[in-house]
Amino acid sequence: MIDAEFKNKYKEYKKDVEDFINSTLIVSTLPQKNIYESQTYSLSNGGKRLRPVLALAVCEALKGKKEYVLPFAVAIEKIHTYSLVHDDLPAMDNDDYRRGRLSTHKVYGEAMAILTGDALLNSAFETMSECCVKYLQDCPHMLQAMSYIARAAGSEGMIGGQVIDIESEGMGVIPYELLKKMHSCKTGALIKASVISSAMICNPNKNVMCALDDYSDALGLAFQIKDDLLDVEGEFDKLGKTIGKDSENNKPTYVSLFGIEKARELLIQATSIAINSVKIPEINSEFLIYLAKYLQERNK
Amino acid sequence: MIDAEFKNKYKEYKKDVEDFINSTLIVSTLPQKNIYESQTYSLSNGGKRLRPVLALAVCEALKGKKEYVLPFAVAIEKIHTYSLVHDDLPAMDNDDYRRGRLSTHKVYGEAMAILTGDALLNSAFETMSECCVKYLQDCPHMLQAMSYIARAAGSEGMIGGQVIDIESEGMGVIPYELLKKMHSCKTGALIKASVISSAMICNPNKNVMCALDDYSDALGLAFQIKDDLLDVEGEFDKLGKTIGKDSENNKPTYVSLFGIEKARELLIQATSIAINSVKIPEINSEFLIYLAKYLQERNK
Repeated sequence: MIDAEFKNKYKEYKKDVEDFINSTLIVSTLPQKNIYESQTYSLSNGGKRLRPVLALAVCEALKGKKEYVLPFAVAIEKIHTYSLVHDDLPAMDNDDYRRGRLSTHKVYGEAMAILTGDALLNSAFETMSECCVKYLQDCPHMLQAMSYIARAAGSEGMIGGQVIDIESEGMGVIPYELLKKMHSCKTGALIKASVISSAMICNPNKNVMCALDDYSDALGLAFQIKDDLLDVEGEFDKLGKTIGKDSENNKPTYVSLFGIEKARELLIQATSIAINSVKIPEINSEFLIYLAKYLQERNK
Repeated sequence: MIDAEFKNKYKEYKKDVEDFINSTLIVSTLPQKNIYESQTYSLSNGGKRLRPVLALAVCEALKGKKEYVLPFAVAIEKIHTYSLVHDDLPAMDNDDYRRGRLSTHKVYGEAMAILTGDALLNSAFETMSECCVKYLQDCPHMLQAMSYIARAAGSEGMIGGQVIDIESEGMGVIPYELLKKMHSCKTGALIKASVISSAMICNPNKNVMCALDDYSDALGLAFQIKDDLLDVEGEFDKLGKTIGKDSENNKPTYVSLFGIEKARELLIQATSIAINSVKIPEINSEFLIYLAKYLQERNK
């Protein structure tokens, strides 16, 4: 696989995701139409769509059925988006910008931003449970995938990580174990769920599941370390969000704990673990390997 | 059924619900333990537990299996509770009290209250999807019940109603159709989902489903009219929340639109429709009838 092939493939997955998102967004004449507009605004944010792309890539790597995985991939993107909308609220991170655009509460007001987040989370489960009803006869594993995603998004997963994050803000340095736990919950859990839920739907053998488990753990870690590095080394134009916000808020990060050099080393190490994990014959792993490299090199 | 029998039965259902809630609340030593504490606080609020009681009562009226319905009943209570936690936030209704106790954001702070609501909503779907995985072989209808609840809680249901509510605040008088839509979404949808999801799990004939559909529509309406009346006529000690808040906020209600007398008439009418709907031989409807009367007479 060469660079152009990877980029085309990524674009293709991204288009699948965005077409599906657009198909689920209702242009409403109802009195509550603003809740659809604000969800559309929040979802149409020009992000990488990493999580759903990962889910689709795993599906193809395992020769699974795209029509089964796509609704779950989009549900995960909705969960991710709701967490950003709530995260940006004044009572949380108080961020006016997200990917270079005004954040949802700056456009629709705080009350609507709270409801928009709620609606996105709820809608993720509407999508998944409808899909389970539709395909259950042919693919009962979907139900396990939904249950896995629900857990990954909850108090043992993403929300748990956000709680640790909020409570450790201003502490500057926290124990490494706690930092690791925070990130594996806050960012890692949903990235992992993108890989694992897709794999569950495709239902491969145990060996493959273990390989993807290792891949997703390492990838999630690498992603977070890179995020911390970008907060120090990135450029506003590319990131579309305020730089240096972590250190300004005295937020514990891999960089604040280990320094830039060591954080870079850890990133390379985690990426390499991810890549080696999926090098097994049962997985058509070319894209997944390239993706890990791409995430290591990204500038946004 | 006499008054004491009804009250005992209500207590019994309530105890089932609260025991189940307590069994799902983790006493955690994890770094994110506060998210469990704040969920426990929000859920242990001494409310009526109307929605889960309704679900259990419908289950018994149809001779269904309690162990199947209970997790869904509790999931609905969690969804209801999350909506109250978010509703009380400063950016929303800005209410410091809920049922005579400090609201969640006053105890745990705004950021944690936002996350607590998110966690409760998410946890409702964790509970339901786990339950579906467990019982799917024996009761595939559960999946439809979850899908119904998801829709009732979302932008076409409860959240949609909240949006109309927020957008019409300060307008004083709104068209009757809009008021009806707002309430049928905001309050009605989840009350209806308590009845219908439980019935779906019990899988009765179409005749019964239609009867329960009518019952839940009328009951939801009666419940809201009574709420509006209590906001004018109630006592803080009993309600545990500020009285006269609706008119203070110039919020459209059945009372502001029709006056007290006419609102009382509408309440009696809706209650009577509810009662007559379930008087069919296939439904063991004694408790459901008593419940409608009790809701009409309640003082909190």
